[in-house]
Amino acid sequence: MPATDHKTTTPRLLLDVRKMQHNIERMDTRIRGLEAAIRPHVKTCKSIEPARRMVREASPGITVSTLAEAEYFFRHGFTDQIYAVGIASGKLDRVAGLIAEGLTLRIIIDHASTSGHVCGRAMRLGCSFPVLLEIDADGQRGGFAPDDPALTLLAQTLERSGCTIAGVLTHMGASYHCRDRACLVEAAERERRAVVEAAEALRRAGFECPIVSAGSTPTARFVENLDGVTEMRVGTHVFMDLVMAGLGVCEVDDIAISVLCEVIGHREHSGEFLVDAGWMALSRDRGTADQEIDQGYGVVCDEKGKPIEDLIVRATNQEHGIVARRDGGPVPDGLVEIGQRLRILPNHACATAAQHAGYHLVGTESGDEDWWPRVQGW
Amino acid sequence: MPATDHKTTTPRLLLDVRKMQHNIERMDTRIRGLEAAIRPHVKTCKSIEPARRMVREASPGITVSTLAEAEYFFRHGFTDQIYAVGIASGKLDRVAGLIAEGLTLRIIIDHASTSGHVCGRAMRLGCSFPVLLEIDADGQRGGFAPDDPALTLLAQTLERSGCTIAGVLTHMGASYHCRDRACLVEAAERERRAVVEAAEALRRAGFECPIVSAGSTPTARFVENLDGVTEMRVGTHVFMDLVMAGLGVCEVDDIAISVLCEVIGHREHSGEFLVDAGWMALSRDRGTADQEIDQGYGVVCDEKGKPIEDLIVRATNQEHGIVARRDGGPVPDGLVEIGQRLRILPNHACATAAQHAGYHLVGTESGDEDWWPRVQGW
Repeated sequence: MPATDHKTTTPRLLLDVRKMQHNIERMDTRIRGLEAAIRPHVKTCKSIEPARRMVREASPGITVSTLAEAEYFFRHGFTDQIYAVGIASGKLDRVAGLIAEGLTLRIIIDHASTSGHVCGRAMRLGCSFPVLLEIDADGQRGGFAPDDPALTLLAQTLERSGCTIAGVLTHMGASYHCRDRACLVEAAERERRAVVEAAEALRRAGFECPIVSAGSTPTARFVENLDGVTEMRVGTHVFMDLVMAGLGVCEVDDIAISVLCEVIGHREHSGEFLVDAGWMALSRDRGTADQEIDQGYGVVCDEKGKPIEDLIVRATNQEHGIVARRDGGPVPDGLVEIGQRLRILPNHACATAAQHAGYHLVGTESGDEDWWPRVQGW
Repeated sequence: MPATDHKTTTPRLLLDVRKMQHNIERMDTRIRGLEAAIRPHVKTCKSIEPARRMVREASPGITVSTLAEAEYFFRHGFTDQIYAVGIASGKLDRVAGLIAEGLTLRIIIDHASTSGHVCGRAMRLGCSFPVLLEIDADGQRGGFAPDDPALTLLAQTLERSGCTIAGVLTHMGASYHCRDRACLVEAAERERRAVVEAAEALRRAGFECPIVSAGSTPTARFVENLDGVTEMRVGTHVFMDLVMAGLGVCEVDDIAISVLCEVIGHREHSGEFLVDAGWMALSRDRGTADQEIDQGYGVVCDEKGKPIEDLIVRATNQEHGIVARRDGGPVPDGLVEIGQRLRILPNHACATAAQHAGYHLVGTESGDEDWWPRVQGW
């Protein structure tokens, strides 16, 4: 534990290991039932112990969002990875170095110009980059349309310069904006169709296309058919959060991480309380702002994790959170007092966890408190 | 430099040392001209080298926002500090330990209940906590009204349990919501009056009240009179940011930090580009959202730091930023291309810097690139 991550101070990030285990198992059961594998996205946890629990024998490996994650998980024995951010030309030498050390690190390409950089570097370095082609299922981020003829042309160019076409990949970011189950079921099917259609086009052109990768936690929760998809990339499900609860992906009680804080002040004129968890500890994420229930900067729970009526963190400064009723009214007498410890459930697990050096465990079988570090930076 | 903070990768946080120096000197001149001292708030920089440049001979010391900062800056020789977050009872033992090691660490109290905890601990530990009483100048955070009779009663109780009344402190957070100069000038005067009135009340009751501390970067920039104020706490001025520029506190060209990134994709249907700086590198801060000019997640500049027409980061995922025109239109042809490096100016310097382990220097006299670490955690 670094000197700056004190075991007893507030604010600190708690991880309920039992809830995490339950979340992992539920998603496993679901995806196995649809005859696909899970390739966990470790950008949420960024920590070796949760990743070990997410990877089962059937797992093809993991998904990473930074090369710092790639290096960290490689050092811990994860030799099969997808780096699921469109590759920057400035990162190719570092990727080639990791491949030379024995890591199977697949990069993704979503544009012909990027492909040009990759081909040039592959030939100069003599490195056979394994490439996944990104498919745009929703117009939200990047990638090729599934029926874009450029896809096979690009695959041919890449193979000619020595790269390997490992398959296709998509991410249905639009699923986060769904407001009901029907929308999510439809988004999941659209995600499946887009990536399978692209894989079939590549196969018709003679590419094996072994990986057909889709996924987001919301689509993985509601998908009904994974025919043709080889793996689902899911990450947020390990901890869950208020955005997921707002989408109906989980219950609020499933959320495995929270920020422990202390009540440090009371604004008598407004009936609000101050806690020592501001945006530095909670993040600035306001992912529930456009959901049906706006949870502010997070739901306020007692020290054991039980939500306290309708209390949320209404606003934050760097190291202050303001606790109020969701409707803006004063906190009823007797619910909260100065010196009391509270837990705040996060809007967005990835963003809140990113504000901390690691996880203080609760709910472990021995009852011992332990600490799991996170990998940071790029 | 930690293994995860690669010197050549993107995204990375750049600090233009010349701009920083200019910002420091301008604020120094301004506050010295009003015969007050600056007690820099190091919560923005969280790094020893910028702090050294902000502290002059006349400086009474620094302001910190976490005990991790208190410990880090104490190890680097800063022995006079204010911990400017209402004290949590769970932190008093650690504060007492630091005081015993020789740090003059003043805590702040904004409520009678907190005071009860502090008195109890002071007597049990035999520690004479130096206390500043927080004054509420704007109803935004916490503190006593300047004319609250509880103020002197509390000061008496604290002294009876062995604490020292070091003075009074306020922070005009409301200044961040001003939209013109007149509002800021008025906010600064209101801030001054509140804290001076409280100091006078304590002096009438027999307390020396040596510290009369006010400040925020916006009020410090526009204050016209500091009579009775002994020190201004300012921190954001060291780097400046788009929120400050939107308030008229600085020009966009004064902003000393930026996030270097690479263009990794092009969404041809919308004319937008993707960069490898998402909210993980930029933060989720949307501080300009309710200003006259909404800068999205930051202003897009070329690799040297010059803004590119009206380009902003419109939206972010964890590791993706979407570059668009401020009015939502497509990026004009030829302005941006895949593989190019860009710099993004931050909405909020404190929040963006907090996403990074340290600063990669640019604009140093030798032209050498160097790296300054930040202190993290609590």
